[in-house]
Amino acid sequence: MKVIFPGSFDPPTNGHLNVIERASRVFDEVEVVIGDNGEKTNLFSAEERKEFLEEITADIDNVKVAVTDSLIVDYAQKVGAKVMLRGVRALTDFGYEFELAMMNKSLYPEIEIMFMPTDPKYFVIRSSSVNELARMHGRVKGLVPPCVEEALKKKFKYPGA
Amino acid sequence: MKVIFPGSFDPPTNGHLNVIERASRVFDEVEVVIGDNGEKTNLFSAEERKEFLEEITADIDNVKVAVTDSLIVDYAQKVGAKVMLRGVRALTDFGYEFELAMMNKSLYPEIEIMFMPTDPKYFVIRSSSVNELARMHGRVKGLVPPCVEEALKKKFKYPGA
Amino acid sequence: MKVIFPGSFDPPTNGHLNVIERASRVFDEVEVVIGDNGEKTNLFSAEERKEFLEEITADIDNVKVAVTDSLIVDYAQKVGAKVMLRGVRALTDFGYEFELAMMNKSLYPEIEIMFMPTDPKYFVIRSSSVNELARMHGRVKGLVPPCVEEALKKKFKYPGA
Amino acid sequence: MKVIFPGSFDPPTNGHLNVIERASRVFDEVEVVIGDNGEKTNLFSAEERKEFLEEITADIDNVKVAVTDSLIVDYAQKVGAKVMLRGVRALTDFGYEFELAMMNKSLYPEIEIMFMPTDPKYFVIRSSSVNELARMHGRVKGLVPPCVEEALKKKFKYPGA
Amino acid sequence: MKVIFPGSFDPPTNGHLNVIERASRVFDEVEVVIGDNGEKTNLFSAEERKEFLEEITADIDNVKVAVTDSLIVDYAQKVGAKVMLRGVRALTDFGYEFELAMMNKSLYPEIEIMFMPTDPKYFVIRSSSVNELARMHGRVKGLVPPCVEEALKKKFKYPGA
Amino acid sequence: MKVIFPGSFDPPTNGHLNVIERASRVFDEVEVVIGDNGEKTNLFSAEERKEFLEEITADIDNVKVAVTDSLIVDYAQKVGAKVMLRGVRALTDFGYEFELAMMNKSLYPEIEIMFMPTDPKYFVIRSSSVNELARMHGRVKGLVPPCVEEALKKKFKYPGA
Repeated sequence: MKVIFPGSFDPPTNGHLNVIERASRVFDEVEVVIGDNGEKTNLFSAEERKEFLEEITADIDNVKVAVTDSLIVDYAQKVGAKVMLRGVRALTDFGYEFELAMMNKSLYPEIEIMFMPTDPKYFVIRSSSVNELARMHGRVKGLVPPCVEEALKKKFKYPGA
Repeated sequence: MKVIFPGSFDPPTNGHLNVIERASRVFDEVEVVIGDNGEKTNLFSAEERKEFLEEITADIDNVKVAVTDSLIVDYAQKVGAKVMLRGVRALTDFGYEFELAMMNKSLYPEIEIMFMPTDPKYFVIRSSSVNELARMHGRVKGLVPPCVEEALKKKFKYPGA
Repeated sequence: MKVIFPGSFDPPTNGHLNVIERASRVFDEVEVVIGDNGEKTNLFSAEERKEFLEEITADIDNVKVAVTDSLIVDYAQKVGAKVMLRGVRALTDFGYEFELAMMNKSLYPEIEIMFMPTDPKYFVIRSSSVNELARMHGRVKGLVPPCVEEALKKKFKYPGA
Repeated sequence: MKVIFPGSFDPPTNGHLNVIERASRVFDEVEVVIGDNGEKTNLFSAEERKEFLEEITADIDNVKVAVTDSLIVDYAQKVGAKVMLRGVRALTDFGYEFELAMMNKSLYPEIEIMFMPTDPKYFVIRSSSVNELARMHGRVKGLVPPCVEEALKKKFKYPGA
Repeated sequence: MKVIFPGSFDPPTNGHLNVIERASRVFDEVEVVIGDNGEKTNLFSAEERKEFLEEITADIDNVKVAVTDSLIVDYAQKVGAKVMLRGVRALTDFGYEFELAMMNKSLYPEIEIMFMPTDPKYFVIRSSSVNELARMHGRVKGLVPPCVEEALKKKFKYPGA
Repeated sequence: MKVIFPGSFDPPTNGHLNVIERASRVFDEVEVVIGDNGEKTNLFSAEERKEFLEEITADIDNVKVAVTDSLIVDYAQKVGAKVMLRGVRALTDFGYEFELAMMNKSLYPEIEIMFMPTDPKYFVIRSSSVNELARMHGRVKGLVPPCVEEALKKKFKYPGA
């Protein structure tokens, strides 16, 4: 079974990576899909985010990365994916995720949305918190993969980076 | 990929059936596992619950039903299941489910727990509510499969049943 | 418009009374309905609870008190009530109440369930907490109406009561 | 009893319409009040939103539509409304709604805020999600009334619209 | 400042121990208070629970252990404690804890209730889950201190224990 | 024990003041720390917020006020504070607060984050709601200290202010 794992991944965190790795052991094929709605002001471009994800999943054979500017359910239909995977980091995410799942299912009834709980070790990592932290030159090591850490340090001009 | 779908199913509801049907289209094999801890006072015996589940899943080839008196993670290990499936009915279930997932994962780190949201049509159905309803001779049609409806009416001596 | 305000009221608290008073100013007729399922072990009998409620609502013309051993939706249909009122004490009640509302609405689609938030002054009062408190001879004054306070002190043999 | 049903209705959804219809059967008079704070960047002007609401409630005698740039509690006092109605779509709304209710009650103690649960069929519809969906030319049929659907298609230049 | 840390500790877990250790570094004196209401059917007697807690806190100078059959706020007043500490394990505990805090504060207004978040490493451990696990001979090592582990194995007759 | 009480305090409310007063009775020294990240568009400047806080805490000997543009955990380390205090206003705050606490603890493991529940009397007051209210010339008396009330009336040009 092929699943898509959609998100903005701006940037991808170690929490995302953990979900991708675990999903790659459960499903035949995992397609990480970066939403590029062109409206939100992202920190990294869709192309940069794609490169991060490709680098950090390079060793996992059944994972590929794509970018889409379509509605995610339309993309799922186009590539013939029947399962959409969402990571959930404890309770705080779940209300929103559940609502999104129901909305997506009403648009594309054949799709199944499955939630995978984030490993507690990563459950406090949220892309937006990482960015806020980096903006103030906080320590992001361990929260994001090395290539993202490096990019954040460049972007926010860490002293000595 | 083989998944187990554990629960007490006392009795199985249309919400359970909905999750089983959808899971059978996502995973290669779904094993519905009835927990029989011998401690809780159940309405139906493990054997009766197994019969209900076998009857209502008779048409789905890749579903089978089992009973266990072991810890569910021990059972999963024994049968070589790497994924445990849980249905979640909106927010109210999730806190408990998340905690249970983390506990199970700490006991058997290789297992993945995946949550599948219940179809909104069924999200108000909980076995215990069905039983309470039946106890007062309420209308359970549409909440549970016909064989369970019949058994509840007998058990609670509905007038005319 | 006539509304019913169902509950177990074991015993009625000042929070209940506050909801009843406010509801009596919004609706033409408020019928407080004590559920007497005969299964739960209540602290006070349905008859005692009815007396408490009648005493504390004696001054409110459009409030009456009833006891039923039917499903509450069946009772609502029998007395022709189209609105069921529920008090909600902050977030902790709401998940359960919402689920109950949906279940009741699926059994009797014409009924409307409306939630009235408890006054913050009373929002920590729950009948079961009051009972636990009284069991240990805690101070229940201000949590329950005087007649209930007196009954609790007798029931739990407060020293000097 | 007259109630006001305040909101931004940007745009009104089928969920809003469902609450309005049901409220019109419970209360003598329902006044839908569009908040026009002039600060937020709305998709539709207050005037457009008023037209949508008037069109979709044209058949319900005891519903009228108004626009206000006052605080909603000041408006309520001005028109002599003692009850403010809010729709709640499952748990996710409730925390915010409860807080808002308490704030409004502290500003205008005589007002009663009542919550009406959204029909599960509509519970995933949120104006902002509808707008985001329409921005990407998703299918909004069934989520909003026909006149709103048409306006969204024009606004977002759906192909063939 | 002296704080009390009340609970049933049936049995104490590594999560409890973690809170006690951390609290002992924040406050001058920490009194762990075991509630012995004599009503609940506990797994371990108050005396056994006291022994567990004394053993596992033996090395922490400013911690002592007590048992009370009074209301906890009465006990706090008697021993002159102005702060009551509660551990909170993520969101699921908080609703209940908040309510309890408000109730206690209404009974004894001078008391301050402070919440200390459980270390994520321990946040899935709940005494009742540990007991249920032990009842089925599950692995409790790492969830509870060694002396409790041993007692659970004896109590539930683990094979080879 | 010295604690820091960080926040944006834009502006400080009576809820903040209530937490500060209570904390000053529990801890030896309370340092209120205003975050000045220079990014967010605040209503009041860091300097103005400092003046408000100094005025309203002038009578409490062991409270002082500071402004920082560092990460709060870096500031805590610099001033040698081992405890960070957060006020929590019922359930709605807690998910976010818990996540923030875990993030901060992962950056500075020696710090302890403690939550103090807001007095129910103040629990509906949020700085952003106060500002929105003031923007519409609503009544903010009782929600904020007199000096803040005056400043809000000037800022938003209340008629007669």
